[in-house]
Amino acid sequence: MGKKVVIIGGVAGGASTAARVRRLDEFAEIKMFEMGPYVSFSNCCIPFHISGTVKKSENLILMTPEEFKNQYNIDAVVNHQVISINREKKYVEVKNLLTEEVFQEKYDVLVMAPGAKAVRPKSIAGVDGKNVFVMKTVPDLQAFMFYAEANKVKDVAVIGGGFIGVEVAENAKKAGYNVAIIEAEKQILAPLDYDMVQIVNRHLYNQGVELHLGDGVKAIESDKVVLQSGKTVPAQAVILSIGVAPNTQLAREAGLELNEAGYIKVNHHYQTNDPDIYAVGDAIEVKDFFTGKATKLTLAGPAQRQARAAADHMYGRTYVNTGVIGSSSVKVFDMNVASTGMNEKQCQAQGIKYGFSYIIPKDGVGLMPGSKNLFFKLLYAEPSGQVLGAQAVGLGNVTKRIDVIATTIMLHGNLEDLKELELEYSPNYGTAKDVVNHAALVALNLLNGEFKKVPVTAARKLVEENAFIIDAREENEYAVGHVVNAINIPLSQFRNRLDEIPHDRPVYIYCRSSQRSYNMVRALGQRGYTNVYNMDGSFLGISEYEFYNDQVTGRKPIVTAYNFN
Amino acid sequence: MGKKVVIIGGVAGGASTAARVRRLDEFAEIKMFEMGPYVSFSNCCIPFHISGTVKKSENLILMTPEEFKNQYNIDAVVNHQVISINREKKYVEVKNLLTEEVFQEKYDVLVMAPGAKAVRPKSIAGVDGKNVFVMKTVPDLQAFMFYAEANKVKDVAVIGGGFIGVEVAENAKKAGYNVAIIEAEKQILAPLDYDMVQIVNRHLYNQGVELHLGDGVKAIESDKVVLQSGKTVPAQAVILSIGVAPNTQLAREAGLELNEAGYIKVNHHYQTNDPDIYAVGDAIEVKDFFTGKATKLTLAGPAQRQARAAADHMYGRTYVNTGVIGSSSVKVFDMNVASTGMNEKQCQAQGIKYGFSYIIPKDGVGLMPGSKNLFFKLLYAEPSGQVLGAQAVGLGNVTKRIDVIATTIMLHGNLEDLKELELEYSPNYGTAKDVVNHAALVALNLLNGEFKKVPVTAARKLVEENAFIIDAREENEYAVGHVVNAINIPLSQFRNRLDEIPHDRPVYIYCRSSQRSYNMVRALGQRGYTNVYNMDGSFLGISEYEFYNDQVTGRKPIVTAYNFN
Repeated sequence: MGKKVVIIGGVAGGASTAARVRRLDEFAEIKMFEMGPYVSFSNCCIPFHISGTVKKSENLILMTPEEFKNQYNIDAVVNHQVISINREKKYVEVKNLLTEEVFQEKYDVLVMAPGAKAVRPKSIAGVDGKNVFVMKTVPDLQAFMFYAEANKVKDVAVIGGGFIGVEVAENAKKAGYNVAIIEAEKQILAPLDYDMVQIVNRHLYNQGVELHLGDGVKAIESDKVVLQSGKTVPAQAVILSIGVAPNTQLAREAGLELNEAGYIKVNHHYQTNDPDIYAVGDAIEVKDFFTGKATKLTLAGPAQRQARAAADHMYGRTYVNTGVIGSSSVKVFDMNVASTGMNEKQCQAQGIKYGFSYIIPKDGVGLMPGSKNLFFKLLYAEPSGQVLGAQAVGLGNVTKRIDVIATTIMLHGNLEDLKELELEYSPNYGTAKDVVNHAALVALNLLNGEFKKVPVTAARKLVEENAFIIDAREENEYAVGHVVNAINIPLSQFRNRLDEIPHDRPVYIYCRSSQRSYNMVRALGQRGYTNVYNMDGSFLGISEYEFYNDQVTGRKPIVTAYNFN
Repeated sequence: MGKKVVIIGGVAGGASTAARVRRLDEFAEIKMFEMGPYVSFSNCCIPFHISGTVKKSENLILMTPEEFKNQYNIDAVVNHQVISINREKKYVEVKNLLTEEVFQEKYDVLVMAPGAKAVRPKSIAGVDGKNVFVMKTVPDLQAFMFYAEANKVKDVAVIGGGFIGVEVAENAKKAGYNVAIIEAEKQILAPLDYDMVQIVNRHLYNQGVELHLGDGVKAIESDKVVLQSGKTVPAQAVILSIGVAPNTQLAREAGLELNEAGYIKVNHHYQTNDPDIYAVGDAIEVKDFFTGKATKLTLAGPAQRQARAAADHMYGRTYVNTGVIGSSSVKVFDMNVASTGMNEKQCQAQGIKYGFSYIIPKDGVGLMPGSKNLFFKLLYAEPSGQVLGAQAVGLGNVTKRIDVIATTIMLHGNLEDLKELELEYSPNYGTAKDVVNHAALVALNLLNGEFKKVPVTAARKLVEENAFIIDAREENEYAVGHVVNAINIPLSQFRNRLDEIPHDRPVYIYCRSSQRSYNMVRALGQRGYTNVYNMDGSFLGISEYEFYNDQVTGRKPIVTAYNFN
């Protein structure tokens, strides 16, 4: 008989630990207690049932207790809550939630994978109303589906614009509801910087999903949500997707160490301060790859690695704990959004000196009919050139570029490495100089001071200040639409029109996507112009960046027409 | 006035060098001579015009000489051949191919980017016939298109099953021709190993593209191709895609050093043995990342990096020359095929001790309707665990996994690094444990001797030898189809049926895709079975591996029904 392993929580972290223990020890006795009615369900796919993309909610259940027993000889016990831990005598007290019966279960090793629960802020009046739902479990989902159907709901408000909130909004919209996302911060999708998220805003706007940004919720009523600003949003059903809090009451009561934010502290091998108790998943503190500081990261990938590492350590196997970089992705209708590592906000918060390149290449060869614009932002450390992070948005293959950056980060690559990466290429999948090579080249040029630029966020101010702005595209392109006040001096003409370009004030240059303008910037720099700036994003990037706020604020656009091609 | 840079060849390498020189030196005099009628065209997209995917052949021209002049102040001169180099006096002799006029052009720096020409083996009778075409340039393409139209061609034979050959075949098929690929080797797509390419064979078979493998061409006649075996393939037009040979006659005559294979030798910075002459692109020798040995690699990505490095070096900038790993991809109808680094054949040829894992996960979460099988093979060095290469085939997101492996290789990652990579994940794009993490875990288990396996190529022999094979799937799955002679002992039952599993002979286990069988292998190993093997690929992999040869040879299948789901 092997050791007895008791696991608290039967979803991602718990179920993965159980399966790994079984592979390492055919003779271990494994018992897994889950409070809810299901083990091993796919939380990540829950939103997709709202639209019918995942047809039946039962499809979300990956394995039943019977399958755990038969295939892995694991006792997966649902509707059972572990209510206390006796660390000295090494047993837990378990309550059968259906019968209220309480029993003791001894353990040699205990694994805590209690997960996190959806936050329901008491500060919101009506937050416990019967029209208010969360979206953490299959029963949560079923409750919303049943209510919406039974009450002929037309308008759904999603509170919280994180990944889950956006996925819920998309799927609710596809299901035919009128959908609004309400977000207290000034932007949705926190892993992206404000500039990149504007592109997503435009897409949601075009799909008819309403955004209410920078406005908290005051009250939820039966047919509307009242915002802090006084605005009201019609909604017969409300889905809370504000965030999660770790389920750590049990750990706290058992005297396990928690950090200030309430997450369970673990060592390198996911042991708590009690070496016979491991903890994995959404309830634990993890270490940041870059800073080594404690942080949280409620994602499935890291949970699975933690589970494996914990099981391995029970059997004497050590582990290289790299810390987490935070890689994530979300599909927003047909737009692909992904990011990895640090963004500007995080660098600023951590006092990390950084720079970034921002490019808008096609994701495949431009002349191939399927190629799409890819908005790509790459962050690097100054002066080392270490790659810190990236954000990408587009209708094409976004995620592969982010995965390449994630790999580069974790293998401690710098911009020189990135520019030389030899990636697969054929016209359907990329360009000979891939997006990531290109972004690294631009970043190196910036790092080495080869040219100067202004970010896409600066365009409006430049227009308003009547800066000297050159549109370097051809005349026919300029005629279709351009930045207000910009002078058209095409790259193909500028060498004969130098007298039109002043030496005594800064010169800002844009084109379609900053390639031609970059060439002009380099040339002018060698022709004695000392104060020349490439405009990040150019006409394409500025159009994307400005559009959404132009629509919802009614402010005056800084372009005579938008360009999204 | 800056230095005078003369460039021989105006396509990928030449045009990229010219553009980079201009950015570094606004005052350089840059002259680029191209033999053909176009500079800067997209060779890679040429096949896609055959099907009309790229609508007009003129769309393949990326920049005209006028645009080079106006935008970059570069003299791009077409229909001009450099016929000799006077290294001592530093000038070239140039012949205007339209007027036959010859003139001298002085240089400070000369760049050779002469590219490579399609091979037309004289050993093939009729190889110079008017129905025989190559597919290297826009005029080549136009010649084929015109001929096929004018002569009402119905059957097209493509000789050579490399990337270009396969792309040509696909596009010709889409254009409505009957298409056969003739390949002298026993497989198409050399960067893949034989096992992986069978999956592509099945796809081509299903699309109605005929393959003739392991059979060279003896003669091309006006309406057919005669093979070495005596077989004939109907074809009123033939496209040669056998390979390329470097255009190095000029270099040879100028006394520049060539290697034995006829490629121009260059140093770290792409200088030839004459420091005033650089060489880049398809005509040069490159260094293999793994072995440091000289090799060739006629791909666009490396050419572009060489061009930049050469231009940089002219201006005193040094370069980290990593050598090449060989990353490539090709879309075969709706199947995505990609590879990077070393394959088994190369490891064997180089005497590198290697192992590999082979897995068939879904490219996204299985319960999402868009998820597709991904056939993934990962090679690693023994005993270091250094990642050597990968091959991937599937209808889903194949290329991102290959790019992650390419990045891991170039940043010297090993299997431990790969298993820990934190990649973006959401249900549309991947699984919490991504394909690459999964492949690394399997590989580590193999490297560490945690279990044993047999490759998918061994299945037929095992069946023929009447080996003890267990099908670990459920009974209903077995009933639909299984490996001939396999005994059905589901993972869910085996602990109660151990008496059916012999100790005195090897036991081979498969399931659908080797996950359940792996668990059974681990369990049996701990239950005293010392000679248990997981069968790579399992029923899915074996079906894919066996199908094509079953169809074309008429041999007896080793499965009672195929499984492709």
